[in-house]
Amino acid sequence: MHPQGICESDEVGAGTRIWAFAHVMKGARVGASCNVGEGSFVEAGAALGDGVTVKNGVAIWEGVTVEDHAFLGPACAFTNDRAPRSHPDFATPRADWQPTRVRTGATIGANATIVCGTTLGAWSFVAAGAVVTRDVPDHGLVAGNPARRIGWACHCGRGLSAELRCSCGRSYEPAGDGLRSA
Amino acid sequence: MHPQGICESDEVGAGTRIWAFAHVMKGARVGASCNVGEGSFVEAGAALGDGVTVKNGVAIWEGVTVEDHAFLGPACAFTNDRAPRSHPDFATPRADWQPTRVRTGATIGANATIVCGTTLGAWSFVAAGAVVTRDVPDHGLVAGNPARRIGWACHCGRGLSAELRCSCGRSYEPAGDGLRSA
Amino acid sequence: MHPQGICESDEVGAGTRIWAFAHVMKGARVGASCNVGEGSFVEAGAALGDGVTVKNGVAIWEGVTVEDHAFLGPACAFTNDRAPRSHPDFATPRADWQPTRVRTGATIGANATIVCGTTLGAWSFVAAGAVVTRDVPDHGLVAGNPARRIGWACHCGRGLSAELRCSCGRSYEPAGDGLRSA
Repeated sequence: MHPQGICESDEVGAGTRIWAFAHVMKGARVGASCNVGEGSFVEAGAALGDGVTVKNGVAIWEGVTVEDHAFLGPACAFTNDRAPRSHPDFATPRADWQPTRVRTGATIGANATIVCGTTLGAWSFVAAGAVVTRDVPDHGLVAGNPARRIGWACHCGRGLSAELRCSCGRSYEPAGDGLRSA
Repeated sequence: MHPQGICESDEVGAGTRIWAFAHVMKGARVGASCNVGEGSFVEAGAALGDGVTVKNGVAIWEGVTVEDHAFLGPACAFTNDRAPRSHPDFATPRADWQPTRVRTGATIGANATIVCGTTLGAWSFVAAGAVVTRDVPDHGLVAGNPARRIGWACHCGRGLSAELRCSCGRSYEPAGDGLRSA
Repeated sequence: MHPQGICESDEVGAGTRIWAFAHVMKGARVGASCNVGEGSFVEAGAALGDGVTVKNGVAIWEGVTVEDHAFLGPACAFTNDRAPRSHPDFATPRADWQPTRVRTGATIGANATIVCGTTLGAWSFVAAGAVVTRDVPDHGLVAGNPARRIGWACHCGRGLSAELRCSCGRSYEPAGDGLRSA
């Protein structure tokens, strides 16, 4: 815990490091062995699993759930309201806010944007600068604005060949709309 | 006012909340009942109306004017120089910096980028991750990089049908290059 | 040096200004007459030349080298790992992290994203919101996601005519894959 970070939550796991100018609010849950990078923010109602890496400048709002070992790149952005308006007459009722789920091992690249109501599948990979507007399947590799699937990602983060093999030696097979280890 | 925020301006309205690691400079104007989110920055010469929501990590520069009840999503970015260079021989004279105007009730989505010299019309809606390079009409809904108009937005933030009606019951009619309530 | 900034490095040049909530780590090198904007971060192993402008909310990682007089726009993002994974079994070995070089006088626009392993040429210009995935030639002007070259930029930051002339009077000629002063 950096002395210039703020941690108000009593639900932070062992070995988690909170950097300067980061803030974990009361009511936020953060697992063990996480890194909450400089200037990042975890709101009440957000939940992070174990071993999550949050790089600098990431705000994780109520309604966002991040599973174990996910990687959240610098300055990536989450949302929890599809139709945000500031005027009280037009604000979205909290009951209509939408959840976001980042599944085990997924990677979100630098400056990527995740529109709420979506799930990023296990070990999926969102390229730097992508704007995600719909679900990403397990091991899916997406890029662009709006993000499209341009390939598949290995556990090790590299892209797979057409035969669903990685240069690291792992291979995969279809499972649902995504992949699983073969 | 969070004890770890900084407010040097004496032109901040009643009921405005400034979060941790946010900074409102002397010479910045912020209206009443605003929220200046964590890590956000309001520069001398910037002006915010009443009821503006500024989410986390937003820098509002000299030359940017934000009218009442606008919503500035997390990590959205403003500019005030179309040709920034750091070398003093090539810096843009301040007289050539360009203004940006965000009109009443407009929404800027998460991680969107607003190139200066543009006006975002009243109740317009800039989708998350969009890169705005030209004016957006009143109630215009824009998305993409560069941002294009893909529809029209209701006061409530939802998209309108081809007949300019919203599922919330409101309806609209053309006015100038934008819309107004019918 | 703002009292709420943090500077742990003993390699910061004369006349460099570090703003509130910014952090220069021990082992980071920052030249003379730089500006390190509010909430920005310079990691151990990163190096900045003289006269560099770093606007707000920019994290400069180990492996990133920024030459003299470059301009880093607000909320632009760097990376140093092409395949980031948080799980220790799948993390990229540090030896495989990739460098980024921002050459003299280059400009990176607001919210742009720079994928590592790339060089931004001297006096190149990355438009606001662009996502750079490959090298940019000297004086190259790139925009979009992924970024494509859409023209050439003058020392003064403006775009050149087809005859490689600027309205400011300067002219250029081809040199390698980029341009040089004619």
